[in-house]
Amino acid sequence: MRSKGFRASDNSIRRLSKYLRELKEMEKRGIEKVSSYVLGERLGHTPSQIRQDLSSFGDFGYQGYGYNVSSLRRSLEDILGKNSELTAILVGAGNIGKALLENFPFDECGVRLLGAYDVDPAVIGTEFRGIAVQSQADLDEELTLKVPDIAILCVPKTAAVETAEHLVERGIRAIWNYTNTEILPPYSPVILENVHFTDSLQTLCHYVAEAKK
Amino acid sequence: MRSKGFRASDNSIRRLSKYLRELKEMEKRGIEKVSSYVLGERLGHTPSQIRQDLSSFGDFGYQGYGYNVSSLRRSLEDILGKNSELTAILVGAGNIGKALLENFPFDECGVRLLGAYDVDPAVIGTEFRGIAVQSQADLDEELTLKVPDIAILCVPKTAAVETAEHLVERGIRAIWNYTNTEILPPYSPVILENVHFTDSLQTLCHYVAEAKK
Repeated sequence: MRSKGFRASDNSIRRLSKYLRELKEMEKRGIEKVSSYVLGERLGHTPSQIRQDLSSFGDFGYQGYGYNVSSLRRSLEDILGKNSELTAILVGAGNIGKALLENFPFDECGVRLLGAYDVDPAVIGTEFRGIAVQSQADLDEELTLKVPDIAILCVPKTAAVETAEHLVERGIRAIWNYTNTEILPPYSPVILENVHFTDSLQTLCHYVAEAKK
Repeated sequence: MRSKGFRASDNSIRRLSKYLRELKEMEKRGIEKVSSYVLGERLGHTPSQIRQDLSSFGDFGYQGYGYNVSSLRRSLEDILGKNSELTAILVGAGNIGKALLENFPFDECGVRLLGAYDVDPAVIGTEFRGIAVQSQADLDEELTLKVPDIAILCVPKTAAVETAEHLVERGIRAIWNYTNTEILPPYSPVILENVHFTDSLQTLCHYVAEAKK
């Protein structure tokens, strides 16, 4: 996982999503306020870690009271772009692409999916939750009409770099990359978020191998 | 993404996978040695970051020479458990599960997939790269015979916690979690690696929203 831009606080931002998930759970259970201590207990972080992460984005808590659950939840959603009316397209409706089209809670992230594209005639026309997969050949024209904020790249590894470069040429400025490939040169101004499954398994394998020693 | 155990160097370990990918590419192109400077250039890290990450695992480079590509590649594979003969099972062969069964390079990570399990009769019996999906009802018996090192959890969100707890009761000590749910209590001794797609998109959305401001 890698993101360009504000690298210093990248880990903090990732933890915000985790805090947000927990706050939503608490809200469901009718909990109105929470201390950094309790939040930390539930998530396996120290209270000071939580206070530090949150304080870099604003002043959310009250000394001796803690945080108001709903209001902190709303603030975190703001920070995580939920209210920024972001749009996305998905390119490559293979297994991973399909899994996202069928199941991923785009609403929860405040992202509106505008369309999905593939090159395979067997897949083109298939509908997932109201979105019919279109021919990738039509994508260029669509992009001249409207450039979405994010391209979700799920094409095969062999097509990854070429497709990414093409999308960037057509104005795409952020890519959610599922191709398990380095698609852009370092220091590219395009905002990139990699979901590198192999890196994730290798990290797990390191810990498992260490534990077996 | 979260792992228990050696939390301090978690980011370093994640970077090792990235270094490994680049080294493999270099090896393919016949490159025999590389400096931390060149490796850093290619990956967008400082040379000192790379030297620091590597030096926490051993003494791989030579002053004025740099690193031998093949030998560093082999060392990183060792650290990342490739030669530890790790085994895994996959539980839940829906879209994400299928995508992993069909495409994921388990060999590359040195992981041997022993079996796949699902509850859906329509999926049971389907074969993916030589692995036939078995009934999840048979899993308990399989686990009394042999406990794999890793369970890859791809069941629906609603079944996530229950299935994880069951697997842990049956001896599973490491979970690669694709359920987008917190499946274990904090401080659980089970080694956990989460692939939280929402956290990843929310992180990307944060950067995109910031860039749009």
